[in-house]
Amino acid sequence: MTFELTKEYVDHIQELIERGDSEGIREQMEGLFAADITSLLIELDTDQAKYLVTQLETTTGAEILADLDPGERRDFLKAFTSQEISRYVNIFDSDDAVDLLNEQPIQVREEVIALLEDREQARFILDLLHYDEDVAGGLMQKELVKANVNWTVNECIEELRKQAEDVGRVYAVYVIDDNGILLGLLSLKKIVLAHKNTKIQSLYDKDVIFVETYRPAEEVAELMQKYDLDTLPVVNVQGKLLGRITIDDVIDVITEQASSDTMAMAGITGEVEEDDTILQQTKARLPWLLVGMMGGILAAKFIGFFEGDLKVVPAMAAFIPIIGSTGGNVGIQTSSLVLQSLADKSGLDSGLGYRLLRMLAIALINGLIISSIVFGFNLLIGNEIQLALVVSAALMSVVFLASFMGTVTPIALEKIGINPAVASGPFITTANDLIGYAVYFGLAHLLLDL
Amino acid sequence: MTFELTKEYVDHIQELIERGDSEGIREQMEGLFAADITSLLIELDTDQAKYLVTQLETTTGAEILADLDPGERRDFLKAFTSQEISRYVNIFDSDDAVDLLNEQPIQVREEVIALLEDREQARFILDLLHYDEDVAGGLMQKELVKANVNWTVNECIEELRKQAEDVGRVYAVYVIDDNGILLGLLSLKKIVLAHKNTKIQSLYDKDVIFVETYRPAEEVAELMQKYDLDTLPVVNVQGKLLGRITIDDVIDVITEQASSDTMAMAGITGEVEEDDTILQQTKARLPWLLVGMMGGILAAKFIGFFEGDLKVVPAMAAFIPIIGSTGGNVGIQTSSLVLQSLADKSGLDSGLGYRLLRMLAIALINGLIISSIVFGFNLLIGNEIQLALVVSAALMSVVFLASFMGTVTPIALEKIGINPAVASGPFITTANDLIGYAVYFGLAHLLLDL
Repeated sequence: MTFELTKEYVDHIQELIERGDSEGIREQMEGLFAADITSLLIELDTDQAKYLVTQLETTTGAEILADLDPGERRDFLKAFTSQEISRYVNIFDSDDAVDLLNEQPIQVREEVIALLEDREQARFILDLLHYDEDVAGGLMQKELVKANVNWTVNECIEELRKQAEDVGRVYAVYVIDDNGILLGLLSLKKIVLAHKNTKIQSLYDKDVIFVETYRPAEEVAELMQKYDLDTLPVVNVQGKLLGRITIDDVIDVITEQASSDTMAMAGITGEVEEDDTILQQTKARLPWLLVGMMGGILAAKFIGFFEGDLKVVPAMAAFIPIIGSTGGNVGIQTSSLVLQSLADKSGLDSGLGYRLLRMLAIALINGLIISSIVFGFNLLIGNEIQLALVVSAALMSVVFLASFMGTVTPIALEKIGINPAVASGPFITTANDLIGYAVYFGLAHLLLDL
Repeated sequence: MTFELTKEYVDHIQELIERGDSEGIREQMEGLFAADITSLLIELDTDQAKYLVTQLETTTGAEILADLDPGERRDFLKAFTSQEISRYVNIFDSDDAVDLLNEQPIQVREEVIALLEDREQARFILDLLHYDEDVAGGLMQKELVKANVNWTVNECIEELRKQAEDVGRVYAVYVIDDNGILLGLLSLKKIVLAHKNTKIQSLYDKDVIFVETYRPAEEVAELMQKYDLDTLPVVNVQGKLLGRITIDDVIDVITEQASSDTMAMAGITGEVEEDDTILQQTKARLPWLLVGMMGGILAAKFIGFFEGDLKVVPAMAAFIPIIGSTGGNVGIQTSSLVLQSLADKSGLDSGLGYRLLRMLAIALINGLIISSIVFGFNLLIGNEIQLALVVSAALMSVVFLASFMGTVTPIALEKIGINPAVASGPFITTANDLIGYAVYFGLAHLLLDL
């Protein structure tokens, strides 16, 4: 039943737009959900997109604008006047409104806020603008339904009726005291089933999980996942109810977190995407390539010292790649596993010592298997046994060292507050490679009595 | 306000358990949420954990069992009789019940189902056991509230009252016709605000997004994210309402997907974790290490051919690492970016040609910068200009080739239905390295007139 976006469809819509056939466009958009129209917009150029959006009802237009990725939206809204933008922001959820405004130049931001018809919305937005994007306060929306603990279910429903307009999705009604302190919540289910004159006091659920405005977004995501919440009330230090965070915002946090970790692992910094400008991509990628290059240059200088040895046993050179790649692969595997268990916060962490022990045990197995195969290969192709020994010994030590580095580095980084995901990135990998070459040539120099 | 699990606390609880002080334990658990008790359980040995759980109310025990990771739960439940297990499964949501039973040996599974007091639950479970875990049918739960389109709001509320017990979280009431075909939904908000005698017919929302039982889990996750749904009704091919998928199940799908991609990238197969047995970990890691090793052996054989050249210009060996690492890094960066945009399905994909063009443009910039720096370095340390030229030319071509591979491979893998995430894994990286060495020694052989 999902909507399929085809080249033909896009062409057809573009035709309608060029013809200025607003009738036909509205017809076409009739059956579609906002999210579908959004994916269509991305295929149109700005003017076409603007024309299409302005043909739709303001509410639909607002949904679409809320859907767009920050970057796309910033560019798209350049085609709109502050007046036009304010018309949509006016009916946005306050959290989405703030996200949109934060993407705009200050002047536009100020103008839009000034032009908002809904003054409450303006007040909400000014409140929320105080918070960083990556804390609970920056994720929350002001729209919520609260009921005083002394009310009856009936009064609560009346309040709900008043709020129903503004509050998109109602999961529960938050129960507060006369000072606005959060006491608990009352599920819609209970409200539906309760008797109209029942006092909320006797009905509401006191075990409520909440979060303070300054808590980091990751912590919010963990909380909502751990306790399976669809909304999380946000309070100030006094416990006063300020807003709520809905699960959809948190899903975005989770996915962004995951993708930025993957990117860090691949040696890419920041929220860059394939279709970003070439400059943006170079900015995100070049630094790490240079790290790798520096590593390579160091390796070159280092191996240079052993040129003499290489003259005597040029076969040595042939095993430089396997030393490097084995070190790299073992390091990435190990750190990724450690990262994974660092990420899942459930339970106490097993001590570093225990971790290392396991890692080294696994290293022993992998190392033995790899180095003996390579040893066999060396004899097979008729290399001297000393060289074969050196290579395998080097491989063995590389596997151990990489396992050690891969275990210790992420833990250390986490301790000093750096995103440990970089531990699987180019920097550490390069370090592992260098260690590998050092061991290899060191051993060779000793054992091949060069 | 979050619960902190400390070593001291765990010790204290263990003491209480050893003393068999069920009173004290219940006191301690009083204030805790099930999820908190779960993270505590993980720290106890099986007997202690079982004793603790059996001290709690069945409902709390059930929540805890539903919380546990599959692996932990399978081991933990070995300490329980089918009779004991059935007591918990009896009040499970049907989807969680099926997950739990699928982890059990067939005999236990059959016994538990036979022992269930709630026969409806048993029927639910038998229905759901038909579906694979990774399709919509395997994610859905049978518990939901449905109302016939011809009812009044009042009848709907009565139904809700009947169901309220079994259906944990109610987001909306699903509206069906006399044949159980899904027609739309009615939000609790509307029910609360509506007049008791209003006909559902005139109230419910016909634009409902649903999914068929056979749809893959990833598609379900995309749908719920794209359309911001907290529940998704599941229907059979005739459109008959069979169950619903709640957002919390989908969050698990999303996070698992992300982590398994990261693992694939790191050269780790399957759902292995740091604290799995050494054997499991070796199974997951060794294959990829062997791939890397094979690559290394190939490289060795290959470089072997040029031993002659190396005798003459041993300095060549020094640049083997930088060739390999640069190829690897560029390849991973490129494929990760392509993967990212393959993953986000919004809009049409830009054509392969366009993609390649951009990638090559970026490659040109990165390649030029890196190779000129390395060129400078070579002259600096007094290598002959020919060697410097060879190295930089090789680097340049490696950057281009890796960018090309990194762009084409994931797209190709996706086309033939292999998880493209492996494109950033050891296999492709190894391939890139080999290409790099080939280019390097090829060029050297030509340009250094050896």
